[in-house]
Amino acid sequence: MVNDNNKSIELSLEEIKSLVIRVFSNNGCDINNSNALASTITAAERDGASSHGLFRIPGYIASLVSKKVNGKSNPVVKNKTNIILECDADNGFAPLALEKSLPALVNSAKNNGISTLSIKNCYHFAALWPETEFLAKNGLVGIACTAYKPSVAPAGSKEPFFGTNPISMAWPRDNHDPVVFDMATATMAKGEVMLAARDGHELPEGVGLDSKGNITKDPKEILKGVLLPFGGYKGSAISLMVELFAAGLTGDYFSYEAELSDNNDGGPPKGGEFLLAMNPDIIADNNWNNHCENFFSKIKTLDGVRLPGERRHKIRNQTNVIRNVNKELYNKINELC
Amino acid sequence: MVNDNNKSIELSLEEIKSLVIRVFSNNGCDINNSNALASTITAAERDGASSHGLFRIPGYIASLVSKKVNGKSNPVVKNKTNIILECDADNGFAPLALEKSLPALVNSAKNNGISTLSIKNCYHFAALWPETEFLAKNGLVGIACTAYKPSVAPAGSKEPFFGTNPISMAWPRDNHDPVVFDMATATMAKGEVMLAARDGHELPEGVGLDSKGNITKDPKEILKGVLLPFGGYKGSAISLMVELFAAGLTGDYFSYEAELSDNNDGGPPKGGEFLLAMNPDIIADNNWNNHCENFFSKIKTLDGVRLPGERRHKIRNQTNVIRNVNKELYNKINELC
Repeated sequence: MVNDNNKSIELSLEEIKSLVIRVFSNNGCDINNSNALASTITAAERDGASSHGLFRIPGYIASLVSKKVNGKSNPVVKNKTNIILECDADNGFAPLALEKSLPALVNSAKNNGISTLSIKNCYHFAALWPETEFLAKNGLVGIACTAYKPSVAPAGSKEPFFGTNPISMAWPRDNHDPVVFDMATATMAKGEVMLAARDGHELPEGVGLDSKGNITKDPKEILKGVLLPFGGYKGSAISLMVELFAAGLTGDYFSYEAELSDNNDGGPPKGGEFLLAMNPDIIADNNWNNHCENFFSKIKTLDGVRLPGERRHKIRNQTNVIRNVNKELYNKINELC
Repeated sequence: MVNDNNKSIELSLEEIKSLVIRVFSNNGCDINNSNALASTITAAERDGASSHGLFRIPGYIASLVSKKVNGKSNPVVKNKTNIILECDADNGFAPLALEKSLPALVNSAKNNGISTLSIKNCYHFAALWPETEFLAKNGLVGIACTAYKPSVAPAGSKEPFFGTNPISMAWPRDNHDPVVFDMATATMAKGEVMLAARDGHELPEGVGLDSKGNITKDPKEILKGVLLPFGGYKGSAISLMVELFAAGLTGDYFSYEAELSDNNDGGPPKGGEFLLAMNPDIIADNNWNNHCENFFSKIKTLDGVRLPGERRHKIRNQTNVIRNVNKELYNKINELC
């Protein structure tokens, strides 16, 4: 159904998923990759996280068309030791690599208390909460991070060097959605800046610099210039840590290397993802769940405080499964089919 | 030697260490605790980190005098599994607990790739880089975090709930000092705000709120009010993660619990510390060290960029082992002897 304003169209989550499967299947993906991508993209739309949903499809498709990404990838998971796992994503998109390797990570962390997973030769273009929430749903603390191409200036500099370098942490809760944050270590995710540019919105001061290194509120100028790290030199240190984990520990590209290797087709660059899973049942004492629930209850008594992830889960848990999709985007995806 | 300005006195690192051993020995610490404390405090003075050096001694001593802290603690390290370690600090200060447990953490991470250490029943009043740098010096990636008493308002709130909740990460380098950050997840340390208040300096907007919850640049008003997390809701999420690791995973106090239990003698509250060590020789591929050195070389080519820890290591590596110590503080410590 086309909305009154004629700018968006209403689709059910089922319709969104079918559309995604169709567009990937018709652009060189096998059914395993198409299904994994559809689950990830539909979950983003379900959660109201549109900057990681259908919005990304033109980029995904561009990198299939350019042959940069292998739409028929067959990711392989390897145990370097019983707790140190590695997944070669076979130059495919992340969702199938994650689908294949997360169960092994869960199993290892469940049995041993802690485990790491390094994903290599991968093209990550989605949010990170699907993987950290999966770990949390299995009773584990999940951490994930990945680098990208340079778009963020390290503190003190005016030149892009870090990727937006997102990091996500999910904390498991009995009978509750996990507490989960998933954030770019830039002031703002590039997808959000792109949406602001598309919609003609001004951004707050401090988000980024224009191509001459001057402060600007215009998202279009920031896209030609550089983003800044969140929280000054402290956020810059967190972004550095993400680079070191996502590239130093996985052996895949740092952001600056990803740029050198990329064909700039509009899709994601090749890179690594680093994941860590911890089992509080082994690390903490028996009372950890109650102890933390008391903490969550206490923080919720403060006016104005929302636990990270709460807003997204509220949208997810709506009985309404209809989502508004930008009509121009919808038409574009249909053309790509 | 008393300096010209008569406000500070020059002491060698040896003299500082002797003074520290004397003041702790004369206030109820056994020789193991006195030595461990002296090493930590002298290292802070050596690195020019005076806010974690001799400056803390009156607080340390107050919590010995009040009998809150056990100066004759005998920390015990336990293997919950071969990779999950726990240390009961026996209600003593952190340095001896760390001295006793870090070698076991190194050993476990070296052999297995990753290992965690939860320290409980501990009083932490120092920086975190001594422990993370120790791990890095042993070829490991080190992470450490601890909570405190509430002084920081979670994003959206105007009430203190989080501690300043520091987190440190150190990355190992061959033939170089490690890359290491160690930062409060508050905008600014309380001591810095106190200095600004004393000197009549205005603070940047966003450091804290006055007692009515209004934004202010006046450090005196912030001291009556509350600090904010660095980087808004993103820094607040990192601070939340620190609470969950330092208290949820160790089973010791969250910041709000630490406050309820504390006698406010001026020393640190009881709490936990969570440490994680990772061995890149096992997790990463063989080339990780070269790969990361290229990355460090590249980032250093950017104008205005300094690697975290660099400034502190520069002071450390000075051949001059004489440090200026505030004369009033020096006299106070001598009185405490």
